[in-house]
Formats: sequence, C-alpha cells, structure tokens
Amino acid sequence: MRFISRLPAMGLSLAVAAGLSASALAQQGQPPLSAEESDPRVLGWMVGSPPPADKIITQPDSVYFSFPRLRWSVCHLREFLPTEEISRGLGAPVPLSYLTPDELTQYAEEIDALTFTPMNSDGQMTWKDSLGANYTDGMLIMHKGRVVYEKYSGCLNEDGKHAAMSMTKSLTGLLAQILVAEGTLDETKRVIDIIPEIKGSAFATATVREVMDMTTGVKYSENYADPNADIWVYSRAASPLPKPEGYKGPNGYWEYLQQVQPEGRHGDEFHYKTINSDMLGWIITRVTGKEVTQLASERLWSKMGAEQAAYQTVDGKGVPFAGGGLTASLRDLGRLGQLMLDEGVINGKRLFPAEVARRIRQGGDPSKFAGFPTIPNGSYTSQWWVFHNDHGAYAARGVHGQTIYVDPTAEMVLVRFASFPTAANGRIDPTSLPAYQAVAEYLMAKD
Amino acid sequence: MRFISRLPAMGLSLAVAAGLSASALAQQGQPPLSAEESDPRVLGWMVGSPPPADKIITQPDSVYFSFPRLRWSVCHLREFLPTEEISRGLGAPVPLSYLTPDELTQYAEEIDALTFTPMNSDGQMTWKDSLGANYTDGMLIMHKGRVVYEKYSGCLNEDGKHAAMSMTKSLTGLLAQILVAEGTLDETKRVIDIIPEIKGSAFATATVREVMDMTTGVKYSENYADPNADIWVYSRAASPLPKPEGYKGPNGYWEYLQQVQPEGRHGDEFHYKTINSDMLGWIITRVTGKEVTQLASERLWSKMGAEQAAYQTVDGKGVPFAGGGLTASLRDLGRLGQLMLDEGVINGKRLFPAEVARRIRQGGDPSKFAGFPTIPNGSYTSQWWVFHNDHGAYAARGVHGQTIYVDPTAEMVLVRFASFPTAANGRIDPTSLPAYQAVAEYLMAKD
Repeated sequence: MRFISRLPAMGLSLAVAAGLSASALAQQGQPPLSAEESDPRVLGWMVGSPPPADKIITQPDSVYFSFPRLRWSVCHLREFLPTEEISRGLGAPVPLSYLTPDELTQYAEEIDALTFTPMNSDGQMTWKDSLGANYTDGMLIMHKGRVVYEKYSGCLNEDGKHAAMSMTKSLTGLLAQILVAEGTLDETKRVIDIIPEIKGSAFATATVREVMDMTTGVKYSENYADPNADIWVYSRAASPLPKPEGYKGPNGYWEYLQQVQPEGRHGDEFHYKTINSDMLGWIITRVTGKEVTQLASERLWSKMGAEQAAYQTVDGKGVPFAGGGLTASLRDLGRLGQLMLDEGVINGKRLFPAEVARRIRQGGDPSKFAGFPTIPNGSYTSQWWVFHNDHGAYAARGVHGQTIYVDPTAEMVLVRFASFPTAANGRIDPTSLPAYQAVAEYLMAKD
Repeated sequence: MRFISRLPAMGLSLAVAAGLSASALAQQGQPPLSAEESDPRVLGWMVGSPPPADKIITQPDSVYFSFPRLRWSVCHLREFLPTEEISRGLGAPVPLSYLTPDELTQYAEEIDALTFTPMNSDGQMTWKDSLGANYTDGMLIMHKGRVVYEKYSGCLNEDGKHAAMSMTKSLTGLLAQILVAEGTLDETKRVIDIIPEIKGSAFATATVREVMDMTTGVKYSENYADPNADIWVYSRAASPLPKPEGYKGPNGYWEYLQQVQPEGRHGDEFHYKTINSDMLGWIITRVTGKEVTQLASERLWSKMGAEQAAYQTVDGKGVPFAGGGLTASLRDLGRLGQLMLDEGVINGKRLFPAEVARRIRQGGDPSKFAGFPTIPNGSYTSQWWVFHNDHGAYAARGVHGQTIYVDPTAEMVLVRFASFPTAANGRIDPTSLPAYQAVAEYLMAKD
C-alpha cells in the first residue's frame, strides 16, 4: 500500500493546478522566506557535482513542488515528469519588436517607480517592490506590439522555460474556440454526441460550451484531508507511473472523466474544476484526431515565430494534461498574448479568425460567477478569466502567480511567471491586478 | 517487493543501451515482423482518442521498449521518462546544404540501386533493400558537406527526433576530448585525483584516458538471468522514480559508480561497459561545473545551426544518462557528423580544435580490442568506434542500428536511425557496413 500512497504525489501537481498545493498546506502558519531569501540561486539548489544532499531536489512532488524548492522546480518540470513537445517547427524564430535600448532603460526606470494601492490596503507599493512581493521569475510587458519591459529572476532566463500551470487551460480553451469559429466543433452539442463512451459520466449531458465555461454540474472535490477526495483519485489516474498491481481505479485522464458523478445542474453556475479542461482536451482530440500538443504546434507555436518549443506533461497513456501541464518561455507566451490582442494576427499573418479573440474578450455570464473576491465582477469563458473592468482586460491565470494579462484599451500584453509560496491567486492578486492597471495607465499616458 | 521488482523496468533502457534488450530476449527464436509489417503507422500504435486498448503503448519499458512497440517508442522516449533539454539557443537554424532537387532525385535512384555483398553471405543486396532489412527510420547521407540522400520512415519525420541510444556515449566522449584539447581535462590523471569521493570504487585508480577508451578494469555484469547482476543494480539506481522505502542501494548514476568493484587490470583490454560513459559524464561535470546537457548545448547545439533542441533522460537526481539518454533529430546529428569530418568547423565557425577530431579518427589500440566479429580490426577511443579500414572510417553507434558514420576518404557523413528488433549491432552490421562502403565508393566515383 505504500506504493499507492505515494502515487498521489506523482499526480503531476494536479492539486497545484487546481489551486491548492501540498506545499501551501505544509507552509500554513509559517512566514515564508522572502523572494530574495528563497531565490534558487541564493539557496543553491542543484549546484555541485553532485550537489550537497540537502540541495538536491528530487521526487516526489510533495518534495520538488514544495516551497522554496518549487522556486527551482517551476523551471525544470520535465526533469521530473514525462512530457510531450509542442514543436516550434524548423523555421527561424521571428524576434519580438523592442523599444530602443535607451527607451527600454527609461521605461524600466519609470515603470519600476510606479506606485499603486494594493487591494485591501491603505498603503502604497512600488511596481519594483511588487515584483519581489509576488516572487516574480519573469515579467514581460508589451505595448502596441513592442516590448517595453522585460525582466528575469529566480530560476528563469530568456532561453529558459517556466511552468504555466493553469494557463494551460486557456491554451486548451483557445484551441477549442478556434475550432468553434471554424465550424469543426459545435459548442451547442452535448458531450455524449461527440464522445459516446462518456455516457456513464455527468459530463455526458453537458454542452461543449458549458465545458468550455466550466458551468458543468460535476462532482469534483478537492478536500485534501479526505483520502477519498476526487483529487486523489484523479491524481492516481493521471500518474504516468505503472499502476500498482491490484489497482482498480481509472487509468489516465480520460478514464477518470468517464466516471464523474453529477453535482448541481449544468449551466447554472461557474465552478472552477480542472476536470472540465481535460474534458475539453478530449473533445478537441476527438473532433480533430490530434493531440492538443500537436494542435498547439500546428496552429500556434509553429506559426507565431516562437523561439522555443514548449512542452506538456502527460499521463501514463500519453494524454497531455490539458488542465495544467504546459511549460513555455516568457517571450513565447508574450507572442500568444499579442496574438490575442491583435485578434489572431501576428507578424502579418492571420492564424485564426478575429471572432475567436472577440468572443473570449466578451466574457461569460458574470451572474454565474462567484467565489473570487479579487475578481468581483468577473466571468470565465473558453477557459479565460475576464475582468469586465474599464479596460476590458482578460487573462490566462495559473496558480503561484502565472498570468497572461491582455488589456485591449491600453494595447498592453503582460506576461508574468512567478513562484509565490502559496498556490491560490487570491493571495497574489492584491499586489498584482492594481499594479497591472497602474502600468496600463502609465503606458496610455505615454501615448 | 512488487515495487522493487518493477524498478528495473524503469531503468531508462540501460539494458538496451548496453547492448541487449528485454525485447530481444523475449523475441528469441521467433521470426520478427518485417520492417513493413512492423511499421508503427501500419500497426496503428497510439492512434485514436483513446487508441484501442491493444494499441496503447505505456509503462514499463519492458512493454514500451519491446519490439514491435519500440518502433514507435524510439521517437517518443520523453513521453515515458523525465528528461533535460539540450537547448539549440534562440537563433535561427542554419539550413543544411542540399543538391538540387533534380540531382537529389538522381542520386536517390542511383543509391537505391547500388548493390553490395552482406557479410557472411554469397548473395547481393540492394541499398534500398538494406533500408528495410535494417528497420531504418531515418537515413541522411552528406557528401562534401551537401545532403545527397535523405529518407524518413517508421515513426520519424524531418521535424521529429529519435533515440540515439549509445551514440550518446560518443557525444560524451567528444565533449571530453574537447576539454582535453583545451587543457581543462588532463587525460593522464587518475579519476580519484578529480573526484576524491570515488575512492572506494575500482574507477579510482583508472586514468581519464582509460575511462574514455573503456579500458578500465571494472566489474559490470549484464547477465539478465541473474537477479543480482550489476545491470539490475544500476537500473534501480538510475530509476527516476521515488525509491521504495527500505531501499538501501545506490541512488543515481554517480552513487552507483562509487561502489564499482574491480575486474581485471586498468589499461589491459577494451570492455564495452556503459558505466565508463557515466563515469566520464561525471568527470566532465566535475571539471566544468556543468551538466553534459548544458555543455552539449553551449559547445555544439547552440553553435552548429541546429534545427531542434535535443534531450537527454535523467536519473532521480537530475543527472543526465551520459551512456545512452540522448534523443535528437536526424539532421542535427548530420551537423554533428559534418563537424567531425570538417575537424571542428561548421558554417564557417570553428567550434573546437582540429586535433579533437584527428585524435578520435586516429583510434585506440586495436590490440586491446576484441569480441566484435563485425569490426575485425577496430578500436574504441574517446567513446567512438574506429574501423581502421581503407577509408579511415569511424562511427558513433547505438543499439538497434543507430549510427553516425564518418568516412574521411569519401568525405561522406551518414546518419542512420533504426529500430531493428534485436539490440546488438552485430546482427545489424552485416547488411549495414558493406552498404556504407558501397555508397562511399559510389560517391567517390561521382567526383
């Protein structure tokens, strides 16, 4: 039984992707090290041949994805897990446009000095201090298609890659939205009409749109204290390791999805449950005959001038983790954000119809959205978060502080990689969302 | 104990890299499917969402690396194993030079029609038939720096990658030879003088050169029938999975190397033992402070105009498998071969001193070399196989038919990826080495 009890730890950080990590739990009540103190270069993880025993980061994920080790591991997930490549193809990358070096210096100084009021606070914080407060590993800001700010810290470099966590969902949702716009995927269809073998699952009678918007009525508990909680069953199913003898549970994401029980009614309310993203990944693969990694390569990475191949973790049957498995470079997610801002056009080429980005930007039904105090008027649609604020901003978001933040009014794309000690973005938003707004206003004032 | 008994199966195909696979053992006595019959596209592995149960390839490696499944898995190792990237950097690839399309067609026809006499045979075989006979997945032939022949089959495409198996050793050896030429590594030093903690191991008193040439006197048995054989201990050590509770053996390649027992005398004879390559990987990392993956990227992949990042499997402590973990693209290994032929220069840039390639080409001591009937006059040096034939040819070689074959006389570089049912190259050479010679002579006659 020891083997079984270890399996959840190999569950590809499903818990983390879902919004709450074992590390966060373990750290409760302890003041975590600061960003500077926990910088992986300061702590010296994995330095040496071999590193000292207490500086080696290894399995299981309750170790390698615990703070402060996660500050190293977010750049190295493939060293722990089986993965598939999202190929950038064989052509030359298309470099991003930049301000002149002098302008970049000036903008960096000015942006670093910007101040804003964190949520639920009377005080002021500078942009520069917000980087540390949020354990930022990478920050890229583009304005009107040009990079105006770029910083790397912690484990990340310009030629490195970082875990995107639940921003993966937005990639999956974008692919689905493209297929809807092209007529390959009918969002009004019920899942069972696309995947007949889902018949025993609560997903069967949900529509594709409900899956895309996470308004399905499906049971998926993430009570970590309960050893029978769905999250553990999902983790065991998702583990890429050989299943222990006698294991009777579902094997892989897709078998898990076939036995999901109902909870509530489809269409009633938004519930942030990762299994919707994996259901959507399956739907995409069924209607295209292609894995989401292949589709992401064909439609995006090989056509947007990407600098680096990305990758996605997989389950034991080679199915990519559509709800949280992506790792990519900062600039390539900048390209993806710019592609959204420019409604499907990049480097003079149209990669998808404009209505794809417009539909996402428009958002879901805010009346169905609740439970996220830092996004009071928000909605969730096609696996993207829509703020319904003055600027019409929307975002891909992943735990521990990952975001692609698109502000159409300021013509700004902001990508942040981070390794905040706590998973839940509710802890990270107060010093992030007002900071993004401050930069947006700064950039608009520069016009 | 079940967990322990499963561990060897996760041993990163050490057995395979070492020259004999479980699959080969399982297949003994059965006539294997032909290349055409076993083509993964014909067998339909991993096609479908999900694939039919009997078409899914999954853990452990006794399954995924058994013939005919290995014909799919050689292109997909990262989907089963943790890996590290060998980055190609962020610049534009430098396309290989090609004959004109008309010339390519003509050369392909002429080369396909070439005939040769397989070893130990009276009959004749055409080049084209040799491709199938050897379960060829990719074949690239370059002459005087230009591609004259390029074919993909089985699981491989131009934008795919393939397991290099023990060709990895030659990459490790090349890096070591570069460090020797640059004076960073003293080949006359004993290992213990570089890595003091190797003191309890038979490697301690071997020289770096003896490690490079595999003339060390170290015990390493690969008797698969013996559950206590060293190969199994090494496999358990190398497994990237969490070690089972109560496990007392070495953890990782480097801990294993510290407890190797002596067998014979250093310097006396060549013995093909993979642990030498991992010892060399450790030496390289100790003297440079860099992992072999990082060094391969800095010195080769990021400077030779590579089209794709390569990758290397790792143990549970993140140490790359220097003896067999590499996966790369056909063309990028063509670049590596051309770099050897051109003695360190590619695309007008010198990447390493000419003496590096010259030293390797010169070979080791043939009087210490025995036991490879298909290489009767050969030697092994710096982890490369030297044929000491009329053409001065030398090669990187990996089980199941992998090779980078450099013929300085014909100014030919040939790269072959294959998935021959049997691991040992002794079975594959009879229809390969004479075929390479025939192409070399054909190309020389074209001059």
